[in-house]
Amino acid sequence: MIKIGVIGYGYWGPNIVRNLHGLDSTRVEMVCDKSPAALARVRKAYPGISTTSDANEVLRSPQIDAVAVITPVWTHYELAKAALENGKHVFVEKPLTSNADQAEELIELAARGNLALMVDHTFLFTGAVNKIRELIEGNVLGDLYYYDSLRVNLGLFQHDVSVIWDLAPHDLSIMDHLIKKEPEAIVATGEKHLNGVEDVAFITIYFPQNVIAHINVNWLSPVKIRTTLIGGQKKMLVWNDIVADEKIRVYDKGVQLSSGEGIRDLLVSYRSGDMWAPQIEQSEALRVELGYFADCIMNSKTPFNDGRAGLRVVRMLEAAERSIQKRGELVRL
Amino acid sequence: MIKIGVIGYGYWGPNIVRNLHGLDSTRVEMVCDKSPAALARVRKAYPGISTTSDANEVLRSPQIDAVAVITPVWTHYELAKAALENGKHVFVEKPLTSNADQAEELIELAARGNLALMVDHTFLFTGAVNKIRELIEGNVLGDLYYYDSLRVNLGLFQHDVSVIWDLAPHDLSIMDHLIKKEPEAIVATGEKHLNGVEDVAFITIYFPQNVIAHINVNWLSPVKIRTTLIGGQKKMLVWNDIVADEKIRVYDKGVQLSSGEGIRDLLVSYRSGDMWAPQIEQSEALRVELGYFADCIMNSKTPFNDGRAGLRVVRMLEAAERSIQKRGELVRL
Amino acid sequence: MIKIGVIGYGYWGPNIVRNLHGLDSTRVEMVCDKSPAALARVRKAYPGISTTSDANEVLRSPQIDAVAVITPVWTHYELAKAALENGKHVFVEKPLTSNADQAEELIELAARGNLALMVDHTFLFTGAVNKIRELIEGNVLGDLYYYDSLRVNLGLFQHDVSVIWDLAPHDLSIMDHLIKKEPEAIVATGEKHLNGVEDVAFITIYFPQNVIAHINVNWLSPVKIRTTLIGGQKKMLVWNDIVADEKIRVYDKGVQLSSGEGIRDLLVSYRSGDMWAPQIEQSEALRVELGYFADCIMNSKTPFNDGRAGLRVVRMLEAAERSIQKRGELVRL
Amino acid sequence: MIKIGVIGYGYWGPNIVRNLHGLDSTRVEMVCDKSPAALARVRKAYPGISTTSDANEVLRSPQIDAVAVITPVWTHYELAKAALENGKHVFVEKPLTSNADQAEELIELAARGNLALMVDHTFLFTGAVNKIRELIEGNVLGDLYYYDSLRVNLGLFQHDVSVIWDLAPHDLSIMDHLIKKEPEAIVATGEKHLNGVEDVAFITIYFPQNVIAHINVNWLSPVKIRTTLIGGQKKMLVWNDIVADEKIRVYDKGVQLSSGEGIRDLLVSYRSGDMWAPQIEQSEALRVELGYFADCIMNSKTPFNDGRAGLRVVRMLEAAERSIQKRGELVRL
Repeated sequence: MIKIGVIGYGYWGPNIVRNLHGLDSTRVEMVCDKSPAALARVRKAYPGISTTSDANEVLRSPQIDAVAVITPVWTHYELAKAALENGKHVFVEKPLTSNADQAEELIELAARGNLALMVDHTFLFTGAVNKIRELIEGNVLGDLYYYDSLRVNLGLFQHDVSVIWDLAPHDLSIMDHLIKKEPEAIVATGEKHLNGVEDVAFITIYFPQNVIAHINVNWLSPVKIRTTLIGGQKKMLVWNDIVADEKIRVYDKGVQLSSGEGIRDLLVSYRSGDMWAPQIEQSEALRVELGYFADCIMNSKTPFNDGRAGLRVVRMLEAAERSIQKRGELVRL
Repeated sequence: MIKIGVIGYGYWGPNIVRNLHGLDSTRVEMVCDKSPAALARVRKAYPGISTTSDANEVLRSPQIDAVAVITPVWTHYELAKAALENGKHVFVEKPLTSNADQAEELIELAARGNLALMVDHTFLFTGAVNKIRELIEGNVLGDLYYYDSLRVNLGLFQHDVSVIWDLAPHDLSIMDHLIKKEPEAIVATGEKHLNGVEDVAFITIYFPQNVIAHINVNWLSPVKIRTTLIGGQKKMLVWNDIVADEKIRVYDKGVQLSSGEGIRDLLVSYRSGDMWAPQIEQSEALRVELGYFADCIMNSKTPFNDGRAGLRVVRMLEAAERSIQKRGELVRL
Repeated sequence: MIKIGVIGYGYWGPNIVRNLHGLDSTRVEMVCDKSPAALARVRKAYPGISTTSDANEVLRSPQIDAVAVITPVWTHYELAKAALENGKHVFVEKPLTSNADQAEELIELAARGNLALMVDHTFLFTGAVNKIRELIEGNVLGDLYYYDSLRVNLGLFQHDVSVIWDLAPHDLSIMDHLIKKEPEAIVATGEKHLNGVEDVAFITIYFPQNVIAHINVNWLSPVKIRTTLIGGQKKMLVWNDIVADEKIRVYDKGVQLSSGEGIRDLLVSYRSGDMWAPQIEQSEALRVELGYFADCIMNSKTPFNDGRAGLRVVRMLEAAERSIQKRGELVRL
Repeated sequence: MIKIGVIGYGYWGPNIVRNLHGLDSTRVEMVCDKSPAALARVRKAYPGISTTSDANEVLRSPQIDAVAVITPVWTHYELAKAALENGKHVFVEKPLTSNADQAEELIELAARGNLALMVDHTFLFTGAVNKIRELIEGNVLGDLYYYDSLRVNLGLFQHDVSVIWDLAPHDLSIMDHLIKKEPEAIVATGEKHLNGVEDVAFITIYFPQNVIAHINVNWLSPVKIRTTLIGGQKKMLVWNDIVADEKIRVYDKGVQLSSGEGIRDLLVSYRSGDMWAPQIEQSEALRVELGYFADCIMNSKTPFNDGRAGLRVVRMLEAAERSIQKRGELVRL
């Protein structure tokens, strides 16, 4: 049983605590938050968990094996570093850190201490992403053409990071998990309308072999959309994460081009067959992820969503940030 | 009654002829196409219309007041020029020409001859676009934040132009019609997968006052999507052109930011009220547009979708083309 | 080439003429309608077709092989009878007649004259119905449990028949085509709100072996819905006829019940697998149907949507009518 | 603060306990269930709540003011009766009892003891039903024409009651709450396919003044549908309870009929205006309902979802049951 201290009980923290509390392999020892109201909510819901407003109590407690850092991104580095230095395994909210240097330092600290460092890329544990990965690895889609994601809604505005740092980590981590190629360069455009950070952004990621990804993130959309199109040479799919059922639809569609005799004789043939919505696993992704975190600690396994996975995402976020400041300048990775 | 010759009876020409035939103010005198099978279809459907495979017969006929050029884009300039030089009014399929120089020359020729030159930006005549324009001009949406359009489907592949020249003219002409600001610069990214032209493209257009537009066009999507989000300071709307009813949904939603005392005290308030789908006009847009063409000729009016409107779209297409070749380089307009 | 006279050029007639005109195996000789405006529309669209306001001209013309009766239901019997007596094959709009006696008489007349008598049950020629029939006949669905159809919209009100006679013939003919069992009894309920005929009706049809069908028809719905659920022991399907693509969705879902030891120990196991939307044929159903009509005449084949199929539907309509008048009294067939 | 004992911790009980636990005006003293595993779940989630497998402990505890009976319907009468006889207020899962006699006895017991008797008609506390009631009471819809509900899904099969007793109480209680007329008669049809109780049922309820209601309930549907159409003389609405947003859509649509001069001159005019989706309250209905239960007890108010409301539903269930056994025989209420 892994004993865990959770730092941060704001928007996401209660989900972390609820799931850690429900697992057999983990126990929440202590929750830390600056807000007395937040701590009162913890005590009402979980009378057995102790609370504190001092992060050091968590970071130094000998009762605690691992620390979950569920705080704003600009605090991740310092808290995770302290936890690792105190010999704790660390689970960090995404994105891992505010910059790549910090991420590299945490990775090294974890390696040196033989400690698990896991980034909360929750989506990688959903049935939907698992199924898509299975379809790609099984070559059902064939060679990939593009990955195009739309993730828009109204708010929640962050006061210190742009919509890129808030929403794009989801898409970048999923894309990284699925495409498994090294991205070459990034172009990002966008605009600020309210508080000095971009609230609308469009990111293009170039990969080798003509694979291209595109991510559209927006805090000012009247409707919530979570749709990803993935085009492959053999099949194409649409992942709609808003609907309860049939989140993934695989289309037996494609295009075949061949040249005719003359210069303008392009012969195009379309293939349009059945659509198929595979059954996908319904477990709560965060529960699966936290169980996997405990499992990695207990069995000294390196999680696939480790510090290096977190670093890859941070690098892309930094590149997108640089590009958007220069109105779409190509930033090589 | 305006007597019209139609050049081109491929994919779109039959719709032009059907609508011109149905109007009281126009009469189709002659249809020209290279394909004997196409001409046979004309004769079967409209025994009263004469046919020819020689464009010059149309261009020079003294029976003909106006010529509709419904051919591939690379032929527009030459045919439209000849028609104008022969004193014919001209209706040209979008985009107007292959480059801005050609468009400027046609505009001048039309002006010199006091002839109407209209570009077939059909969408500007739909009930949906009319309603959106009304909402913007009536300040229902308030100051605009962004215009974000998704126009994807499987095919139809063109052999000589990229997906930008094929699909984006729709969005660019609508955007131009609605935003009514001078675009400042364009960034385009995309990729080629099949026949040496981009089949997936993402275009960002920067406008003054932080207005931004984004257009996502794709020939390799398994599903057909035609969705545009428009965000304004007072209201936001979603235009879904695929559905039969309630194409436009106006959301009484918004965000208000105010700074609190401390540096991190961002106060965000969201407004989330009713949604409203205004009734929109159901007439066939192409019929309305062609009636307006005849009306402009008969009453010597300058159409709003004239050569200059066509030129503005061609300039943006050229800029997007240049940008995409350099992987997102900013091209100023 | 079958030469056809069409009587009735109101709401549906133009579709009949357009399709007959487009087929190679048929030629429209004459169109009859009482309205001079309707006949003017015929002449404008088809200069080669002669027109008349006198049905006898069509019924007696030696130039005409077959008559299409596309008029209100209360006129079908008289017109079809006259056509058959004049040796013409007959294509009649649904429902075949106003009562079963009339239908039986037409069937006998057609048989005696070796003439084709076909009822326009257009839906039986759609790709969707073909595909569902294929799934049922191939035992993909397994034993049928139920057929439940919802066909509602705003209007079109008829002045002489209820919503049952207007809309239910579609569902009854499809159901008859798919279930292929003899219905045992009918229960219908409903209500009148405006002009003395039911505008809302609910029909239950009992079949042998616990198969049950239900049809919900409504002229007072704010939205147009065309959805049919079909439950089978092995699979279940949803047919949504409003959407452009994926009209049919087949669900690998089911329930298995077994009794445990105690009286209350019901063991229920649910099966919930993939969903699958088979590609379906996109041809215009009416065109296929009219081509089949010509083919049946030329090759002396009995159409499956013949007078007897029409009679089965009329009998169910009569039973539903009797039941609804007595607030759901069971009417045996 | 009302101290409550909860009997039954199966499918629905945990929601009751969670909400009672979260309210300031209630405290859960004890939870009773026959299953040791269920009680273990209670203790894990709420260490402060005592547990028992003996209902009498709850029914007789002097610490307990009110009892929530969240057990199968056949046990409601006995448990509620004992609770009332012990001077406890009672909250009973729907439907109130297995028959009207039992319900009447409970109503009398509650009245005699001045005790609250509330039936868990949760839907009456949703933002959606509140909004619809507001629209009807404010005469926005005008005179009602019909109420038509579709409530279908796969399972959950009950071993002792049919789909009517399982699913229709929702619709009957909502309909009763909204229509506020005395129903006159019921016709029900349906079929059994698996375990000797109807799994598919169609219920028509006749009201005065041509108002008609229809309820379609089905345990064998491959998809989950919760859609209600309500037609009024002035406006019509669609309530789709599956979607997260815009559950209610109000359509400014209608039909006006007037008779022309001749017998067949029916003049129909359709009105088709805007659609409007009012913002609705998002609170969890069960929480609101349980707070209202406490409020009624503390302030000696009679809840609108009292025993008499529960009795009206039970009477309609009994009538539907009788009707379905006789294949749609009209049962007067």
